[in-house]
Amino acid sequence: MKILVTGFDPFGGDKINPAFEAVKLVPDKVAGTEIVKEEVPTVFGKCGVILEQLIEKHSPDAVICVGQAGGRSVMSIEKIAVNLAEARIPDNENQQPSDEPIINGGSSAYFSSLPVKAIVKTIKENGIPASISYTAGTFVCNDIMYRLLHLIETKYPKIRGGFIHVPFATEQVVDRPDGTPAMSAETIAKGLEYAIEATCKYEKDISGLAGETH
Amino acid sequence: MKILVTGFDPFGGDKINPAFEAVKLVPDKVAGTEIVKEEVPTVFGKCGVILEQLIEKHSPDAVICVGQAGGRSVMSIEKIAVNLAEARIPDNENQQPSDEPIINGGSSAYFSSLPVKAIVKTIKENGIPASISYTAGTFVCNDIMYRLLHLIETKYPKIRGGFIHVPFATEQVVDRPDGTPAMSAETIAKGLEYAIEATCKYEKDISGLAGETH
Amino acid sequence: MKILVTGFDPFGGDKINPAFEAVKLVPDKVAGTEIVKEEVPTVFGKCGVILEQLIEKHSPDAVICVGQAGGRSVMSIEKIAVNLAEARIPDNENQQPSDEPIINGGSSAYFSSLPVKAIVKTIKENGIPASISYTAGTFVCNDIMYRLLHLIETKYPKIRGGFIHVPFATEQVVDRPDGTPAMSAETIAKGLEYAIEATCKYEKDISGLAGETH
Amino acid sequence: MKILVTGFDPFGGDKINPAFEAVKLVPDKVAGTEIVKEEVPTVFGKCGVILEQLIEKHSPDAVICVGQAGGRSVMSIEKIAVNLAEARIPDNENQQPSDEPIINGGSSAYFSSLPVKAIVKTIKENGIPASISYTAGTFVCNDIMYRLLHLIETKYPKIRGGFIHVPFATEQVVDRPDGTPAMSAETIAKGLEYAIEATCKYEKDISGLAGETH
Repeated sequence: MKILVTGFDPFGGDKINPAFEAVKLVPDKVAGTEIVKEEVPTVFGKCGVILEQLIEKHSPDAVICVGQAGGRSVMSIEKIAVNLAEARIPDNENQQPSDEPIINGGSSAYFSSLPVKAIVKTIKENGIPASISYTAGTFVCNDIMYRLLHLIETKYPKIRGGFIHVPFATEQVVDRPDGTPAMSAETIAKGLEYAIEATCKYEKDISGLAGETH
Repeated sequence: MKILVTGFDPFGGDKINPAFEAVKLVPDKVAGTEIVKEEVPTVFGKCGVILEQLIEKHSPDAVICVGQAGGRSVMSIEKIAVNLAEARIPDNENQQPSDEPIINGGSSAYFSSLPVKAIVKTIKENGIPASISYTAGTFVCNDIMYRLLHLIETKYPKIRGGFIHVPFATEQVVDRPDGTPAMSAETIAKGLEYAIEATCKYEKDISGLAGETH
Repeated sequence: MKILVTGFDPFGGDKINPAFEAVKLVPDKVAGTEIVKEEVPTVFGKCGVILEQLIEKHSPDAVICVGQAGGRSVMSIEKIAVNLAEARIPDNENQQPSDEPIINGGSSAYFSSLPVKAIVKTIKENGIPASISYTAGTFVCNDIMYRLLHLIETKYPKIRGGFIHVPFATEQVVDRPDGTPAMSAETIAKGLEYAIEATCKYEKDISGLAGETH
Repeated sequence: MKILVTGFDPFGGDKINPAFEAVKLVPDKVAGTEIVKEEVPTVFGKCGVILEQLIEKHSPDAVICVGQAGGRSVMSIEKIAVNLAEARIPDNENQQPSDEPIINGGSSAYFSSLPVKAIVKTIKENGIPASISYTAGTFVCNDIMYRLLHLIETKYPKIRGGFIHVPFATEQVVDRPDGTPAMSAETIAKGLEYAIEATCKYEKDISGLAGETH
């Protein structure tokens, strides 16, 4: 089994993106599963093109995209991506869509096919705060999640996929207002590791059940 | 040079107190200075008695007491302790004072003699959020800080002393409402280490200046 | 022109629901438009049945459902409702669905047909904080919004509809933790009035444009 | 009986100061007591000079100074003022003191002589959130509170005095980040009225007791 984990490059004036900083800290093997870690650009549309190339290259069983949600205090396992692009700030190629569909004629929304409840439970059991989120926003995080789930729906039905939002890393809030929540990159990486474990366990349970029916 | 660093035991139903968890992670030597780490009870009055015994035992050059401020997101370097005990919950010996002076006839307040601005600056330069706080509350944290500064004022004028409040540790917020800020015990310990470094540097600078005047 | 504005009855132990308290304060005429105000039950499914009866009874040109989002600080104009029912607490008839679709085979999500950006702009220009929200949650608020938009999609294509979340009313936070945001019922009612004005203006502009094409 | 209530003029780029906006809305008579309302400048030192002139002019039985604490969500009845001036931003005459005593050789702190617990209780019983605060900060609000209590201590021992911090008014948060708490000026004014009522009742109870001892 193989899981592709992506993290975005920095954007909006921040020097790092805790998403990819944390992704890099995830071990190359988790629960016996090979983990492929890749950086993707914080660019509407292009992130999906790159993602498809990575899927073609690595043929993963599951894809977990990871992004930063500045201001959130917990690991947020996203449940849903919506067909809407609306940017408060420009992306890294200066695009700033407003009230546009991501894919013309696409489904209004897609639900994650990751086991979101099991992931939240596993992360919390290991001492890291986590919860399900019902909005991935309307910036590039939602864009890549929507495009991933659209690819799965239309081209790669055997792949399981979803998105995880992570808080600011500790060093990012040093010059932000007191009260801005943060999490250390090490803790975020641990949280991602538990998310992967929960996904592997779910996949094996499902496969086992499928096997039993033969 | 020797610095005594204290942390409280758990209270209010929490299984750990991030203050002492972090204090335990501080190295035994920081910037060439011996660090003595001790746990103190979360008990009004008694914390001061124990603290005086520890001062007598270790003869430190500086004392930094550390406590938990659940809900704060940054390392809080306390500037002032006030002569007031007012408890929302009982302490660990079931005392719950209301609107009482800590020391009858004592000064209404004492200012920290730690270099609070230099401490904040040093912690932040190392990527950890910190700020000066102007209230240590009215629970046992303020009690030990007030008693420490009163001891310094009345019996140990050569000792430098103050108090640092730290956020919840990450694992403490797993079952608290989303949005409750936290910091990993490792990060808190690093923050304390930088606070100690800043204190040592200040002490040496002061001594140097004093030396020059001879 | 006629607009139906609904507010939920109290739930989750609160004695009032700021949604309907505020709805009751909205004038009977806003910008020349008749406003019909109705209370709806905080009950999954049934809220939609009642809503359809109210639509049949009043034949409104637009429907604005209003609900409480405790913890939010601003008027939240909801952009999207998702086909998912997941309840952290029971509704007022003790139902607590988990991970269920609202309507089997329904669209994964519906977008509001209210002019959400114009509403936000109008409310803010009048000194009341407001923003677009991309999640109405997964409790009864999302349920009625989804059912409203499904009714519009399948039976009442000429009606414009959507949902507005409002903060706790001031008196609701007296015994909640310090820091819990609130808004006075009078301010919320004013905000709803501006939302109605923006909707009426948009409807007239659209009708005007439609007229011009004849 | 007569109570002087002061509010600051706007500062820090805001067009209004909710403190004085609310003070102006307080009735001229509360619980049979004459209320004198005056604006004071947001200027270190000068605010105290003006305050003494107002005390000389009006001969009040009690003085309640009111200021804005942007970011707080409740009426904050201040318990203590400290002998420290430290300004993050310049005051309205461009002074920006750093780590200076307000009055050289003055007490390190003064406690409010208003009945702070009774005030909090009365405001909350009337549906408005309130709590005791143990820091009035180190800007001009703390400056005027410290100077008021110093005047009372040294020159006007029969006057009762203290300070109340109020949240941003609703319109002030329209362009601030979502999540910034606010309160309507009308609600703040009601809260001040309840604070005055509680102060009058306390004064009468005390006087009654004093009378009984004759």
